[in-house]
Amino acid sequence: MRRTKPIILGIAGDSGSGKTTLARGIRQILGNEIVTGICIDDYHKYSREERKEQNLSALHPDCNYLDILQSHIAELRRGKAILKPVYDHSKGDFSRFKYVEPADFIVVEGLLAFHIKKLREMFDVKIYLDPEDFLRETWKIQRDTSERGYSEREAKNTLHRRAELSTRYIRPQREHADIVLNFYPPPELPGETGSRLNARLILRPTIRYPDFSQFIDQDQEADENCLSFTLGRDSGTPVDLLHIQGNISQDTLEYTSRLILEHLSEAGPTSLENIGRYLEGKTPRKSYPLALAQLLVGFCLHKLKINR
Amino acid sequence: MRRTKPIILGIAGDSGSGKTTLARGIRQILGNEIVTGICIDDYHKYSREERKEQNLSALHPDCNYLDILQSHIAELRRGKAILKPVYDHSKGDFSRFKYVEPADFIVVEGLLAFHIKKLREMFDVKIYLDPEDFLRETWKIQRDTSERGYSEREAKNTLHRRAELSTRYIRPQREHADIVLNFYPPPELPGETGSRLNARLILRPTIRYPDFSQFIDQDQEADENCLSFTLGRDSGTPVDLLHIQGNISQDTLEYTSRLILEHLSEAGPTSLENIGRYLEGKTPRKSYPLALAQLLVGFCLHKLKINR
Repeated sequence: MRRTKPIILGIAGDSGSGKTTLARGIRQILGNEIVTGICIDDYHKYSREERKEQNLSALHPDCNYLDILQSHIAELRRGKAILKPVYDHSKGDFSRFKYVEPADFIVVEGLLAFHIKKLREMFDVKIYLDPEDFLRETWKIQRDTSERGYSEREAKNTLHRRAELSTRYIRPQREHADIVLNFYPPPELPGETGSRLNARLILRPTIRYPDFSQFIDQDQEADENCLSFTLGRDSGTPVDLLHIQGNISQDTLEYTSRLILEHLSEAGPTSLENIGRYLEGKTPRKSYPLALAQLLVGFCLHKLKINR
Repeated sequence: MRRTKPIILGIAGDSGSGKTTLARGIRQILGNEIVTGICIDDYHKYSREERKEQNLSALHPDCNYLDILQSHIAELRRGKAILKPVYDHSKGDFSRFKYVEPADFIVVEGLLAFHIKKLREMFDVKIYLDPEDFLRETWKIQRDTSERGYSEREAKNTLHRRAELSTRYIRPQREHADIVLNFYPPPELPGETGSRLNARLILRPTIRYPDFSQFIDQDQEADENCLSFTLGRDSGTPVDLLHIQGNISQDTLEYTSRLILEHLSEAGPTSLENIGRYLEGKTPRKSYPLALAQLLVGFCLHKLKINR
């Protein structure tokens, strides 16, 4: 049993929206050894074959043991270990369960993370990933064909079949998020799908997030407006908006990262090496806006932990 | 969620002592549809192959996820479903997990059911199976060679290797039991291992069991002393002793069963057909003492349920 309750981060978003990529960086920033990662796909009820036979989609809430997931998160929060099912995407079937112990932080990511009220209420911070549709489609096809053994045609068909379920079950989760992360191409590069994308963090006052303006160098002459923190509205309600432009310089990234890492130093040394990393098919790439988004979320979780 | 907490029966005993056989009859008497059965073997940590490689025995507490078992029983008691691991004895490896829902009764059986205090405390009734050693060895070899794909020599070797662990971890659980069930051959048939064995139920006043003397026909002329209920001592402390002789007549069995079943009638119709059934290798047999023991335990659980 652990003395203090873990801080629990929930990440929701549609298939291919970047949940795993975001989670990986945040785990590394906090320190992998003090984070328990849970991927909700492991709680699928059916194998790929079974879903095909019964014409079911893994995206439907009824095709996932969300009740068991909720019990498991509650157990981890109580400081107890769980026996987690394991779904292997490469074969579309289940592998042997895994014994998972609680840790200081729990990062839960999946399609339906905010679907059930009781589960939602267990998260200290909820992030919804909301990239532009054409980006998500591109990313999903890249991922499904390179990692999950689908042909491009199969991957596209899946996208098509899922559209209605996505509108019904995935999108509505956006409103429950404390932070919405949105990648979009800069106006001058409308076809961009990689490292030059801009990022926007929509911060809702539903949680107490740190004052991120402290990390913005007011004299960023060389790199004007690459990083901005302003008031705004989302769905009619007031929010803070943190913009990170894709053309942010390495200098500004390093300056800002150092400021954040100083605050995180109690958490032990953190290497910047893998932060912001993503896969384009099988090729590793780096996105500065993603790196900064991961750092800011990591910082936010760290603050919650020390103030608990 | 269910309105009332389930009644939980724990059955412990060494390998081959008849746990599964006892549990099967009790589940049927209570009504399979209102009983959740849990076999602790499913909570093994390692496959047969892995145990072999590391020279470990499934009998050792460290080779079982007893913490997870305890959490799972607590969940079921709270009225929640669990995702139970599944260990397949025929292949000595794990199969896909199973979604298990709570029910009015939970029957938990396994080698180490009473090893952990917290788990022990969750049982409403604890039964320890304590057949004579040579009986258990015979039964275990029959079972391992017919159902688990072991050769006779392998089964015997396992017995030998396990003796020390058995003394250290299994036997000490006897003292925690509310009921000890002990099969033994009648003096005139010292080599008997099947249906003509006598049974003795040692009833400790650690639970409130029903007055079983009500089921004993005081005028059993034809069948003298086949069924008796007397005071006695076990390990120095006072107990009730219920003796059932292997040569009990079908008439007496039916008379007594009817009396018990009348009390159980609220629980719906119960067929006597499969009660007392056991396997001798692959051959199904019937034991009257086993049938009566199952009926009496079933009655006891039923009483606890209606008085809860």
